[in-house]
Amino acid sequence: MNRRCPRPSKRQYLDLGEHPLESGEVLPSVRVAYETYGELNVRRDNAILACHALTGDSHLTPHSAGDEPGWWDDMVGPGRALDTNRYQIICSNVLGGCYGTTGPSSTNPATGRPYGSGFPAVSIRDMVRIQYRLVKELGIHSLVTVTGGSMGGMQALEWALTYPDLVRSIIPMAACGRLSAQGIALNRVQRLAIMSDPDWQEGHYYGSAGPVSGLSLARMIGIITYKSEGLLAQQFGRRPQGEMRGKPPFDQSFSVESYLDYQGQKLVDRFDANTYLYLSRAMDLHDVARGRGGYEETLARIVCPVLSVGISSDYLFPPYQQREMVQILRRAGRDARYCELESPCGHDAFLVEQEALNLVIQEFLSGLNSEETGGLAWSRKASG
Amino acid sequence: MNRRCPRPSKRQYLDLGEHPLESGEVLPSVRVAYETYGELNVRRDNAILACHALTGDSHLTPHSAGDEPGWWDDMVGPGRALDTNRYQIICSNVLGGCYGTTGPSSTNPATGRPYGSGFPAVSIRDMVRIQYRLVKELGIHSLVTVTGGSMGGMQALEWALTYPDLVRSIIPMAACGRLSAQGIALNRVQRLAIMSDPDWQEGHYYGSAGPVSGLSLARMIGIITYKSEGLLAQQFGRRPQGEMRGKPPFDQSFSVESYLDYQGQKLVDRFDANTYLYLSRAMDLHDVARGRGGYEETLARIVCPVLSVGISSDYLFPPYQQREMVQILRRAGRDARYCELESPCGHDAFLVEQEALNLVIQEFLSGLNSEETGGLAWSRKASG
Repeated sequence: MNRRCPRPSKRQYLDLGEHPLESGEVLPSVRVAYETYGELNVRRDNAILACHALTGDSHLTPHSAGDEPGWWDDMVGPGRALDTNRYQIICSNVLGGCYGTTGPSSTNPATGRPYGSGFPAVSIRDMVRIQYRLVKELGIHSLVTVTGGSMGGMQALEWALTYPDLVRSIIPMAACGRLSAQGIALNRVQRLAIMSDPDWQEGHYYGSAGPVSGLSLARMIGIITYKSEGLLAQQFGRRPQGEMRGKPPFDQSFSVESYLDYQGQKLVDRFDANTYLYLSRAMDLHDVARGRGGYEETLARIVCPVLSVGISSDYLFPPYQQREMVQILRRAGRDARYCELESPCGHDAFLVEQEALNLVIQEFLSGLNSEETGGLAWSRKASG
Repeated sequence: MNRRCPRPSKRQYLDLGEHPLESGEVLPSVRVAYETYGELNVRRDNAILACHALTGDSHLTPHSAGDEPGWWDDMVGPGRALDTNRYQIICSNVLGGCYGTTGPSSTNPATGRPYGSGFPAVSIRDMVRIQYRLVKELGIHSLVTVTGGSMGGMQALEWALTYPDLVRSIIPMAACGRLSAQGIALNRVQRLAIMSDPDWQEGHYYGSAGPVSGLSLARMIGIITYKSEGLLAQQFGRRPQGEMRGKPPFDQSFSVESYLDYQGQKLVDRFDANTYLYLSRAMDLHDVARGRGGYEETLARIVCPVLSVGISSDYLFPPYQQREMVQILRRAGRDARYCELESPCGHDAFLVEQEALNLVIQEFLSGLNSEETGGLAWSRKASG
């Protein structure tokens, strides 16, 4: 696998040594990769933690001219919602990842070879515990907010429940308190695409090309679920890809097909197939209530202000899921708000509609300093 | 591939000889498998053609006690919407199929071996032309209606445009006038699942097990798109499959996963992988306007009464597509009605909600004999 993972100049590493997992297994040594933007204030209480999604990394935005673009370029910077003049923004690669934090492609100290599928299963809570250790090492005892979309939003929710004394607010986007049956099903078929590829070699493919076609297919399935029917209709419709006549019957014939192929190949070039398996499984296991009691009862234990952002066209995490969380929180008397982003971009809108999200988050963060954070819900029409 | 294709006792065959395809290629000999229910009247004008979907066949309902169940058991029979006391119901396996009609698993007379991927690409129009030849051979010059769901509905639409003099009405369900970009994308990943399986052997797997895991994966992806988020939540939720602890990290852990695996295996036991490829490609190519002018202009050429049925929770063929067709037809002054089935069953509702469909179709068919067929649209709450 030709992995051209970007390595931004300002990626930092912290070695945490041994780390016990939720499963009871213990990782003998964990390294975490992270990046920071902006400066900590003297009280060390102006930090914001941003959490990435399935195939993301710690790189939010370029640190300087010529640096790689990030996944939230327009959200982070002077005057942006995650304002580097006011806050220090921290983002780390998750446990199990392939962008510098310990994961299945890391060397297992017991064997001297990559863990592969010998890496233990990890959960969203495990990711959050690693982030907690990082944040404490950085000398931070209070976070302005924890935010992220999709798997990043799951992490934000776990933060509020696991470290309530450290989190002053959370902004989960296009996320849920527990993954739905449909979400589990979609992860299942994506994992099977990878594991059915003979080049996966039961997870021990390092040193060879690895499951190129399997990972590409998994990504293609994923991509469809991150978009919306309307968006694909608008962007591709039934536009043919070159001349159809005379082609073999199953060749690329429509531009949406070659777009998918391209997206699949692009991920293969930058991502580890085992990480895809482990993180998708962590999402399956995501249930804030696991070991904590009932679902509503658990959510109601979130005491900090919450802004839950849903996306009108999200197939993967339908907006009723984000709305429902806010209803539960408000019934428990919590300060929770729901904002629905009206966007045709589907689940991906949390990456695409950064202009609209800037306004929503700025409004929420500025409200945190006042007594009242406003009405129950509002909706924001995205420009896209 | 252990293919236990059901062979109902009353399946009949008709050899049509040479058949030219839309692509210009010519099949040297075509056999069509079909079944009939009920009797033709003396005027030979009481026949209804039912068209099956991707993995269906000619078997609508048992012919007698002990016979195999069919795919429209509760729609066909005395007193049902497709009333065998009044109509003769005809259903044939489509061209390219694997239930008796010539397809990629049939013997290529030029080589004496199965066609495999040497079978020419077929279109929905090709399927309909074969059905037309069958119907004419049966001595029928007028059909009460042509109906079917999904790919079956595509055939109904093509019937109305290709043989307007023969069709007195059509009832397409959960279908569209041209497949959307999302539909093409979903077909693409399902075909890739099959074609990436080394056991596919470029389509020449006959005599060996064939692409078992690839076809199973394709089916699992398909199944998710045939359901709805709400249905899967209700049926499976996050119910675990046995004990999770101690299992390998990616083993089946949730019941929705083992349900999908079971559905995948079930299709492998009864279906041909190449047929899956050819029929899914035929759906991609489906566009009533191909070679006929503009889309609206083409649809407006449908002169017979149309009942277009949409399903409220259909992800694959969203109901706006069926509503839009009716709007186009009505703008052109046609007798077209839209009925939206309120059902949580997703795309599959045309197979599941037969009780509600009976009422809808009975109402439409009885209205065909009166001058006025009623209002623009109505909705029907399914019991399921």
